[in-house]
Amino acid sequence: MKIALAQLNYHIGNFEANTQKIIAEALKAQSLGAELVVFAELAICGYPPRDFLEFDDFIDRCQHAVADIASQCENIAVIVGTPIRNLAEKGKPLFNSAAFIANGEVQFFKKALLPNYDVFDEYRYFEPSREFEILHFNGKKIALTICEDLWNIGNDPLYTINPMDELMKQQPDFMINIAASPFDYRQAKARTEVLQQNVGKYKIPLIYVNHVGAQTELLFDGGSMAISSENKIQLKLPFFREDMQLVETDSLLNESGVVLTKPESTEIELIHDALVMGIKNYFEKLGFNKAILGLSGGIDSAVTMVLAAKALGAENVVGLLMPSQYSSDHSVDDALQLAINLGSPYKTIPIKELYDSFEVQLETEFKDLPFGLAEENIQARIRGVLLMALSNKFGYIVLNTSNKSEAAVGYGTLYGDMNGGLSVLGDVYKTRVFELARYINKDGEVIPQNTITKPPSAELRPNQKDSDSLPDYDILDQILFQYIECRKGPKELIAMGFEEKIVNRVLKLVNTNEYKRHQTPPILRVTPKAFGMGRRMPIVARYLS
Amino acid sequence: MKIALAQLNYHIGNFEANTQKIIAEALKAQSLGAELVVFAELAICGYPPRDFLEFDDFIDRCQHAVADIASQCENIAVIVGTPIRNLAEKGKPLFNSAAFIANGEVQFFKKALLPNYDVFDEYRYFEPSREFEILHFNGKKIALTICEDLWNIGNDPLYTINPMDELMKQQPDFMINIAASPFDYRQAKARTEVLQQNVGKYKIPLIYVNHVGAQTELLFDGGSMAISSENKIQLKLPFFREDMQLVETDSLLNESGVVLTKPESTEIELIHDALVMGIKNYFEKLGFNKAILGLSGGIDSAVTMVLAAKALGAENVVGLLMPSQYSSDHSVDDALQLAINLGSPYKTIPIKELYDSFEVQLETEFKDLPFGLAEENIQARIRGVLLMALSNKFGYIVLNTSNKSEAAVGYGTLYGDMNGGLSVLGDVYKTRVFELARYINKDGEVIPQNTITKPPSAELRPNQKDSDSLPDYDILDQILFQYIECRKGPKELIAMGFEEKIVNRVLKLVNTNEYKRHQTPPILRVTPKAFGMGRRMPIVARYLS
Repeated sequence: MKIALAQLNYHIGNFEANTQKIIAEALKAQSLGAELVVFAELAICGYPPRDFLEFDDFIDRCQHAVADIASQCENIAVIVGTPIRNLAEKGKPLFNSAAFIANGEVQFFKKALLPNYDVFDEYRYFEPSREFEILHFNGKKIALTICEDLWNIGNDPLYTINPMDELMKQQPDFMINIAASPFDYRQAKARTEVLQQNVGKYKIPLIYVNHVGAQTELLFDGGSMAISSENKIQLKLPFFREDMQLVETDSLLNESGVVLTKPESTEIELIHDALVMGIKNYFEKLGFNKAILGLSGGIDSAVTMVLAAKALGAENVVGLLMPSQYSSDHSVDDALQLAINLGSPYKTIPIKELYDSFEVQLETEFKDLPFGLAEENIQARIRGVLLMALSNKFGYIVLNTSNKSEAAVGYGTLYGDMNGGLSVLGDVYKTRVFELARYINKDGEVIPQNTITKPPSAELRPNQKDSDSLPDYDILDQILFQYIECRKGPKELIAMGFEEKIVNRVLKLVNTNEYKRHQTPPILRVTPKAFGMGRRMPIVARYLS
Repeated sequence: MKIALAQLNYHIGNFEANTQKIIAEALKAQSLGAELVVFAELAICGYPPRDFLEFDDFIDRCQHAVADIASQCENIAVIVGTPIRNLAEKGKPLFNSAAFIANGEVQFFKKALLPNYDVFDEYRYFEPSREFEILHFNGKKIALTICEDLWNIGNDPLYTINPMDELMKQQPDFMINIAASPFDYRQAKARTEVLQQNVGKYKIPLIYVNHVGAQTELLFDGGSMAISSENKIQLKLPFFREDMQLVETDSLLNESGVVLTKPESTEIELIHDALVMGIKNYFEKLGFNKAILGLSGGIDSAVTMVLAAKALGAENVVGLLMPSQYSSDHSVDDALQLAINLGSPYKTIPIKELYDSFEVQLETEFKDLPFGLAEENIQARIRGVLLMALSNKFGYIVLNTSNKSEAAVGYGTLYGDMNGGLSVLGDVYKTRVFELARYINKDGEVIPQNTITKPPSAELRPNQKDSDSLPDYDILDQILFQYIECRKGPKELIAMGFEEKIVNRVLKLVNTNEYKRHQTPPILRVTPKAFGMGRRMPIVARYLS
């Protein structure tokens, strides 16, 4: 049987566009000889639809979309993810389902394991299914599951049941899994391992179809695949772009099939490509095409600008230089040089006069109190006002340039440099930002070398360095990684060899700056634990703080 | 048996303070003759602890706190909520439990129904228990449950099981339920109904102990109670403050017991008291005592200032007047009069010169483009910078003064008037803000009458009125209520008689302004559906937009 794996980019809530795309792709698959075409989890409405699922109107539109597809796809069967209503008297109001559409009839297969951790909230909306039925199609028996249904395998099982164990009782010929499995730099590898653990356990082939494309902070990398019963990856769709490919199921039973052994990308390549896709889709799906950002001559704004230029075209990314009396000459030179290297437009608005105006207006209040944090922040906030003024006037979206290390310890000004529609590097530690810069420069200097080699500085007071206020980034980032990604506590960190005083200081900074992160732009998620929807912390608390 | 109901205010993660408070209250209950003292759900760590629960260190500290209580409370039994580890091989890593501590021994009773909707994320952390055991103490059999365990009653059950149905098989003498049930203006009534439905069904008395106090956006109103087997409320603890009271269980079996029939507060009284508590606890728990806010002469800042003055003392709330060339004389007068009426300090910093400086600096970019949104927003953002400058310099927390109607339709300036550490009125529709103002003035004019009677205006351009941009608040607020609180879609709204054009416009405004709300301060929650943690929407989407 020829099956098409359709790895597409959906727009949440845009039923017209999603339905048209699904029908067009199904008809294309049919013309290529496919008997069945498989789309991703909740493809009908986009993933994650979040609380839109609580609107009857939204669910009605999903139903209509499925009916449209059923009426348009007469000569090819379709598997597509959609929410459906739970008609039972008890339980949550919806199921997360895979609609199987053939000959105008629709049959639903429901998700049993509902992820409800990190960025996932599925138990908020869906009742877990406890029905396990095989899909019969063209003489084959298919074990059709949805994403997490295959993930309760290996050590540390989160759930008390395993859907495939149940389905195997009906002796399926192969598995199909439709997914919405978001990217992080370890996930492509983890995902392949989980899929191969399933094939290893159940000894039948597996066809896996994932989302691709960005949904605000969530980046879906695709990587759909077909695995033979001998546990060889015979077909693998690309990362970070739409694609459709066909597989012949008989070949998946055949040990002699072609084995793809393309080398995996490095972590830094994956992060780079994911961020570029994240920017691109954010703008496209909102209907914007121009970005602006504050260009300081530092590495964060440089890397952000290069990624934006790759996503939107260099001509669509405006660098705004806003030097103060504390800006060093090399900062302005480095910023200019980057814009020139990219061929991007740039503008300069110095902030000294604006700062002086604030000083005058605040004189009666501030009197002769010494220069301090308030004055530093005024400079950052003036820059924020200028960026937003150009954004409002000319329809640019402001890109935030904060990195994860700064966001973690609150080394940034709320309503100043923490502004923006989207945070590009908010899930990339400072040490990784340097790696990205070197990766960007691998075939020649785009980011000025001086930007990479000079010591990081906010330049908000004379001769300021980040290292005046923070531990060295090498140490800081390791502690942050252990605390944020690995949830290690102070005792464990100290046992690892980090200095107690630094550990306590860093953890306190992270926890007491939750209020700042609460008000920042959505952050493109590239690690297993990003700030934002996947990390939910009390703002008012006293723990390690 | 004499049982003490201890309704306390906890500090999330502050194990030392919480444990001391619990032990002190237990010893006090013992001295009053209680054999058992009951504290609320997750009292050990505060509610909601959110992702702190994912740290082993945090769970260790909960264990130590329980051990401390066990060692200190020798002559009184204690029921107190705490997370405990799930030692089974499968399932989520924790249970939400009630520890029963007596004679140095600890026994755990685990929550079966885990709320995972609106502001609740319990299935993110906890495995639902399927063990149902009675607590035996001093010759009595007690059905001990945790909050949601009693809520699967009446129509539309969310869960497929009912813990009390299981526990009744063991013929308990009475029920104890420990809760963390947050306030909204309908919840006190709904909660009493649910508790009485349980007593009505199971015909045994119920002792109910709730949290009190604010945890950032979540406001716990207390209202702990004891209900007799005849379904009469014999004991009710106050709303919005800590208290401890004793009940004799035998009296709860006695029809002749005293029946309390205190009149319930009105909705507006409840909202008023909840907001005052919300402000007060936010500052106390963060260790701050002074607030600042922009005082415009309008009703939102006036009501916010009065509530803050009640919470913090009038002398601790600074009103900052920041008139522009578009501010009317009456605005300044009204703002001044309010500060004088309250006896609060006020300061004036005009923004015209700052605005002119921005105009000069932006001249080369803006050229002779007409005055528009960009220019309006610059004014609002200058005010934001000034408020934050004083906040940074003097340690004030900025109170946000936006109301729910504005927040819903995006009628506010990001990084301008949407700034603040806490949003006081962000869950109060404009029409309700007027009700609050009248309630505040019920015994004499605090808020100047002119502030209440003049048409609302942002005063960012000449003769601006809110009604230039928005439908009348009477209509707008009704549509917003139906869409946000009741999740009605466009068809349902039009069927209710709202004009199609207005409905579509309002829904589009709500959905396309999600990006703004994503970056706003936490909002004190007083309705069943507030913006913030309880309403999770995609930012990039195209649904009704």
